[in-house]
Amino acid sequence: MKDPFAKNDVKIAVLGGGTGSFTLLSALKGHTKQLAAIVNMVDDGGSTGVLRDELGALPPGDVRQCLVALSDSSKVRDLFNYRFESGTFGGHSFGNILLTALEKVTGNFNEAVETASEILRINGVVIPATLDDVRLKMEWPEASLILRGERVIDADYFRHDPRRATLSLLPSATANPMAISAIEQADMVVIAPGDLYTSIGPLLVIDGIAEALKNTKASCVYVANLVTKNGQTTGFTVSDHASEIERFVGGPFLDYVLYNEEVPTRKIMQKYKAEKAFLVKVDKKVLVNMPYKAIGGNFLGKMASKKHKADKLPVTRSLIRHDASAVASAIIGLYNQ
Amino acid sequence: MKDPFAKNDVKIAVLGGGTGSFTLLSALKGHTKQLAAIVNMVDDGGSTGVLRDELGALPPGDVRQCLVALSDSSKVRDLFNYRFESGTFGGHSFGNILLTALEKVTGNFNEAVETASEILRINGVVIPATLDDVRLKMEWPEASLILRGERVIDADYFRHDPRRATLSLLPSATANPMAISAIEQADMVVIAPGDLYTSIGPLLVIDGIAEALKNTKASCVYVANLVTKNGQTTGFTVSDHASEIERFVGGPFLDYVLYNEEVPTRKIMQKYKAEKAFLVKVDKKVLVNMPYKAIGGNFLGKMASKKHKADKLPVTRSLIRHDASAVASAIIGLYNQ
Repeated sequence: MKDPFAKNDVKIAVLGGGTGSFTLLSALKGHTKQLAAIVNMVDDGGSTGVLRDELGALPPGDVRQCLVALSDSSKVRDLFNYRFESGTFGGHSFGNILLTALEKVTGNFNEAVETASEILRINGVVIPATLDDVRLKMEWPEASLILRGERVIDADYFRHDPRRATLSLLPSATANPMAISAIEQADMVVIAPGDLYTSIGPLLVIDGIAEALKNTKASCVYVANLVTKNGQTTGFTVSDHASEIERFVGGPFLDYVLYNEEVPTRKIMQKYKAEKAFLVKVDKKVLVNMPYKAIGGNFLGKMASKKHKADKLPVTRSLIRHDASAVASAIIGLYNQ
Repeated sequence: MKDPFAKNDVKIAVLGGGTGSFTLLSALKGHTKQLAAIVNMVDDGGSTGVLRDELGALPPGDVRQCLVALSDSSKVRDLFNYRFESGTFGGHSFGNILLTALEKVTGNFNEAVETASEILRINGVVIPATLDDVRLKMEWPEASLILRGERVIDADYFRHDPRRATLSLLPSATANPMAISAIEQADMVVIAPGDLYTSIGPLLVIDGIAEALKNTKASCVYVANLVTKNGQTTGFTVSDHASEIERFVGGPFLDYVLYNEEVPTRKIMQKYKAEKAFLVKVDKKVLVNMPYKAIGGNFLGKMASKKHKADKLPVTRSLIRHDASAVASAIIGLYNQ
């Protein structure tokens, strides 16, 4: 007989990439054992970029973070996150090396992720959004401007409005059938917070994902970003973020947008200001007229995680984080309504 | 209630290093679930050497081979043995990287081996003979000659009789208490075949090992090498090998010596001859007067394993191997006498 609890658990598919998915999954796993993390596959920087360039591997970095989030074994979790500090392997995360070795041994990234899942004893599943080896492309047709590669786009200060740009993958990417199936079978689909043009967008434009999102009976929730990204989403409001999400999918599909209303301390705000990152403005008057229901909450966490030099993140990146457990409770609350 | 089979299984401690231990353990695990592989810790060449030099890690290579031998999961076994072919990780075995990362994360090589054992789901235990970070030293006091380092000694053509040399570790090494305990609790202790001066000897001269071997109530068996090593054990007979083993321990302790009597094909012999490696001569007239009982058998296997370029082994190295299952049966036979 199957476990009745597992059977009654809400099925949640979380779409995203690195840190945003990581924190959300870490909190959601306290509420349900039926989690599917669907992961963007365009990362080409840092340790991941070296593994892709040298070994033709699919990008392991974001998959690793989601695996670690869903693991119950703290010892193996530490191992997966371990970064070599010096020497030949300096800057490489062990989990990335493991996933690449498994891909080589099994000849298949899906199987690599499955084996890693067994080793990490994860709850739920981690699903690469596509198994095609693709690179990100961002094009402004009116300006005849093309940017290529996730790392390049991530570092760019856009000279033109990104809302007029087309995001695509080269060569074109077909969704992993497991990702489609997870979206279709889910009770809830959550779009995790994350960079619009280098993390969330690249996942949503994969062939097949948009159709699945439009067809699923699941409630679709977008957890809006806390702060803007300088040179990319400067001035973007909550509804601007949600509109871009729906533009990537090619039409309205969101049922809910969760946004933060809590104000951080002045000290943290000043540090952010120095990085020209600002809180995403809540444009309530616009939100009230949207087809989705926008719900505010006190979603500000205080997690200031240590980071490794090899991450090359701006200093403030780790200062403001979602209070993932508050967000997770809000998501579960929507399901129980 | 404990499993009666496990309780009645013969407890065997196998002392050795790489390939010799690997093949013996692979065969012995069909006979008993109570195996302890005690592993020499002086390797400083190849992938292992880089990890030691760059990261101050203890040598993972031989431990990895023993772990793989005792694992039941073929998928994870393939992963541990996988060697990266090119790029930053070229020539490195994944299992070595894993053990080094685990040592860094846990801060302890013993715990690293335990965690790797869980991941590989091994039967039995793998025990690093010492947890001290040591290098091998071989000294001919009469000739004022000192060789330092396993890799250097392994590649040397000895100018003087190695039987007049002293093998030691720098700085001095204390045996891992688990190794002592395994030798003391074992029903049988098996010295695996392997290079006398760079694999078996370096293990036997660790402080505490000799005493444990002399005190244990276990039957002590030495599985003699099949061929001599050019420039090191040229002309050595079976009893010469056994005498060196006992010299390392500082006195007689062997109850049995198993040696091969089977003759390989002419073709294989010619290939060996080209490498100046010859079958170890069976000196029956000497053996019959030894305190141990020498037992011949048809122990010649036909395993010609593929090897990786990074192994840098001479071509013939893989042509003649023990028929490990015949050797294992002979060992179990001694216990059941």
